[in-house]
Amino acid sequence: MVGSVVDVSLMDPCEKVEALPREFDPKEISCPITSEANGVVEENGKREIVLGRNVHTMCFTIDEPDADDEITGEKEAYMASVLARYRKSLVERTKHHLGYPYNLDFDYGALGQLQHFSINNLGDPFIESNYGVHSRQFEVGVLDWFARLWELEKDEYWGYITNCGTEGNLHGILVGREVFPDGILYASKESHYSVFKAARMYRMECVKVGTLISGEIDCADFADKLQLNKDKPAIINVNIGTTVKGAVDDLDTVIKTLQENGFTDRFYIHCDGALFGLMMPFVKRAPKVTFKKPIGSVSVSGHKFVGCPMPCGVQITRLQHINALSRNVEYLASRDATIMGSRNGHAPIFLWYTLNRKGYRGFQKEVQKCLRNAHYLKDHLRAAGISAMLNELSSTVVFERPKDEEFIRRWQLACEGNIAHIVVMPNVNIEKLDNFLNELVQKRASWYQDEHIQPPCVAAEIGEDNCDCVLHKN
Amino acid sequence: MVGSVVDVSLMDPCEKVEALPREFDPKEISCPITSEANGVVEENGKREIVLGRNVHTMCFTIDEPDADDEITGEKEAYMASVLARYRKSLVERTKHHLGYPYNLDFDYGALGQLQHFSINNLGDPFIESNYGVHSRQFEVGVLDWFARLWELEKDEYWGYITNCGTEGNLHGILVGREVFPDGILYASKESHYSVFKAARMYRMECVKVGTLISGEIDCADFADKLQLNKDKPAIINVNIGTTVKGAVDDLDTVIKTLQENGFTDRFYIHCDGALFGLMMPFVKRAPKVTFKKPIGSVSVSGHKFVGCPMPCGVQITRLQHINALSRNVEYLASRDATIMGSRNGHAPIFLWYTLNRKGYRGFQKEVQKCLRNAHYLKDHLRAAGISAMLNELSSTVVFERPKDEEFIRRWQLACEGNIAHIVVMPNVNIEKLDNFLNELVQKRASWYQDEHIQPPCVAAEIGEDNCDCVLHKN
Repeated sequence: MVGSVVDVSLMDPCEKVEALPREFDPKEISCPITSEANGVVEENGKREIVLGRNVHTMCFTIDEPDADDEITGEKEAYMASVLARYRKSLVERTKHHLGYPYNLDFDYGALGQLQHFSINNLGDPFIESNYGVHSRQFEVGVLDWFARLWELEKDEYWGYITNCGTEGNLHGILVGREVFPDGILYASKESHYSVFKAARMYRMECVKVGTLISGEIDCADFADKLQLNKDKPAIINVNIGTTVKGAVDDLDTVIKTLQENGFTDRFYIHCDGALFGLMMPFVKRAPKVTFKKPIGSVSVSGHKFVGCPMPCGVQITRLQHINALSRNVEYLASRDATIMGSRNGHAPIFLWYTLNRKGYRGFQKEVQKCLRNAHYLKDHLRAAGISAMLNELSSTVVFERPKDEEFIRRWQLACEGNIAHIVVMPNVNIEKLDNFLNELVQKRASWYQDEHIQPPCVAAEIGEDNCDCVLHKN
Repeated sequence: MVGSVVDVSLMDPCEKVEALPREFDPKEISCPITSEANGVVEENGKREIVLGRNVHTMCFTIDEPDADDEITGEKEAYMASVLARYRKSLVERTKHHLGYPYNLDFDYGALGQLQHFSINNLGDPFIESNYGVHSRQFEVGVLDWFARLWELEKDEYWGYITNCGTEGNLHGILVGREVFPDGILYASKESHYSVFKAARMYRMECVKVGTLISGEIDCADFADKLQLNKDKPAIINVNIGTTVKGAVDDLDTVIKTLQENGFTDRFYIHCDGALFGLMMPFVKRAPKVTFKKPIGSVSVSGHKFVGCPMPCGVQITRLQHINALSRNVEYLASRDATIMGSRNGHAPIFLWYTLNRKGYRGFQKEVQKCLRNAHYLKDHLRAAGISAMLNELSSTVVFERPKDEEFIRRWQLACEGNIAHIVVMPNVNIEKLDNFLNELVQKRASWYQDEHIQPPCVAAEIGEDNCDCVLHKN
């Protein structure tokens, strides 16, 4: 049951200086989880996931300094060597990265001076703490910017800078539960896993709703599920860009479905805008994410479209909900409505810096560029006879999973079953895409030179129209 | 009900360039919360906390760049000016900080080169992700170090680097609840508020246990409470250093109490070692925190004793619990047993760097220095006729709350009712303490020059022996 364990002590002693971060075995990484090496045990046909220590992990050990280290400088030299090699590997990996929605193109050189300080935004951004080394004044500036973007007045919103998209979802769903303690959580099956994690953590009843081929929530199925649970309020997670297909749930149809099924005000909507929450406002024809509609909260990641050295995010909700929440927390003796309490004070400054430099107009330009480049990628894949799909409002190109795991690893593609995806971010330019396309077309010629080996059919995942398998190609 | 709101647009337009982070009003900050300005409304004698937007917050606004900004360079100049002033205020505040247990003495210059990368440790540290820009190899090195410190074998532990002490508590208590779904959470009333937040989030029954004057859990009261709930398993939060008094719950007595009351194995112990989890192993005579005792998890903060630019922490638990947990998470289709999912990849490198440089011996020396300096501070306070207490195993000096709020603000002291505390960290040297003592003694002479105004009695908080008020002084 317990996975394999690394005995680092068996490693070549030289290795701790020499080794680069181990290149991983893609069999271990792609979802869905299908191999035992990956921590999954098939037992009586039932998949069981075994967490932790399932994979041989490369590790930079920490050794007790020798008594004479300060004189010999050996320790310093060892550490400098590890760091230099690590840095080199990061450069290499950043260059070839395509699979995750992280904007790796940023320059925060001007902020390097702040790394010497232990900046901690304890608790509520709007209530001062007596720890003086904080960055609340940057945080509130960033929050105001996002509240304006999503059209909520300054005196009507509350929010904070989170550690990541997951914390935003955890917070939004918690607020929903506090507003409707017996509410049922509805989320499409293509929602981020943190949504289902929240349901489990919070002991909430959770109903999974089906999706369309595009990855959007299927509102017909949603209506059916609502009908089965008419007596309880509904808490809904609406995806503004799903993880795999970049699908945007139709907020207007979700609201209409609620109302048509008798949920006139017994509902709370959390919008998981991890990636597209910041892009959608700049896409023409996109259904608008705005607090002028009856939504309760929106979260977005800061390290994705904006770009940031570490994960972070923004959570905005209605002040009235937080005040309602606060009436119940007296026994906490705390004015802290955040999940984490202590919070990274550097992240708000990174975000403040980029938002100030780029502004709404800057982001609009970047969004347009990403959508253009995504279309370029999709069109060139299809022109090369490769199955591919691109949702209208998305920069996530879903395509046939490359046959060679080395290739997947090299480009750090996220895969699920027979499909892979590339999220076209501001740092992904035409040149990078051309390099990728050329390499893929060339490799593919060798993978499929034997006529008996055919590319997979992906009609089930992305629809017949987008599938170029031997059965569906026109 | 809704607190006051800042209309930033009303600010002097020059202010956005000129203003330093506003000095806060200490009336707003000290616990317990007692004033309306502080977001608390007394209604029918019932205290109600109103969260968010209760305090006028200084904010650095984000303005849309002008079309010609790139040519004029005005925007860059504005931002550089804000950052330079902010940096100056951080230097000043770092210099005078005494109230929070953060080691502000670190030099991570060698790691500045890594700020250019978006380092993200997605999910389980022991399972590779296909996002290549991670620092798992550092993270696992740090985790191994802590597992060794707390005596858990490499193949028997699981853990991860968290965003802060709160995340460690949230995780430890969640694991406890998954092991005993109908367990009751017991925590002393001086536990960190995140423990009670967890109970609320997780919908757990929670029983508060009384404390001794020292701040330690009162095991007689604990026994009584256990007797009232004999039918349900116990999940216990044990404090290895409480927030206010730095009190260390006696782990051995807690275990004995459980066993004497019939809880032979129906219990789960989480040790909240936010600060002292890393110091205790180096204190002679301290009851040992070790997995050789029947504990389930230990958490510690990384930005406290180690020192780190941003909050972070370490969570170590038994692998068997995580595997038990995993059997229940199939529907998550996730191998992620962390709370946060996306995690800051820089924090592990900071910790790795310091642990490698200092080693166990280095920390031992620092712990001894802190305890010595804490005794120095306590002795000098008492010699000056000032009420003060120092727990035997602690570096947190609790003393009479200074009368002048300006003084509290200047030294960033955390206060609660009539007491304040100073946490003596490695960056707090004798010189800094002497400066503080001299200033306090001098100020005090003026605060209490009028005989009718007397220092407060703090016997209720720290005991008669430690109280130097007019009634209790010998």
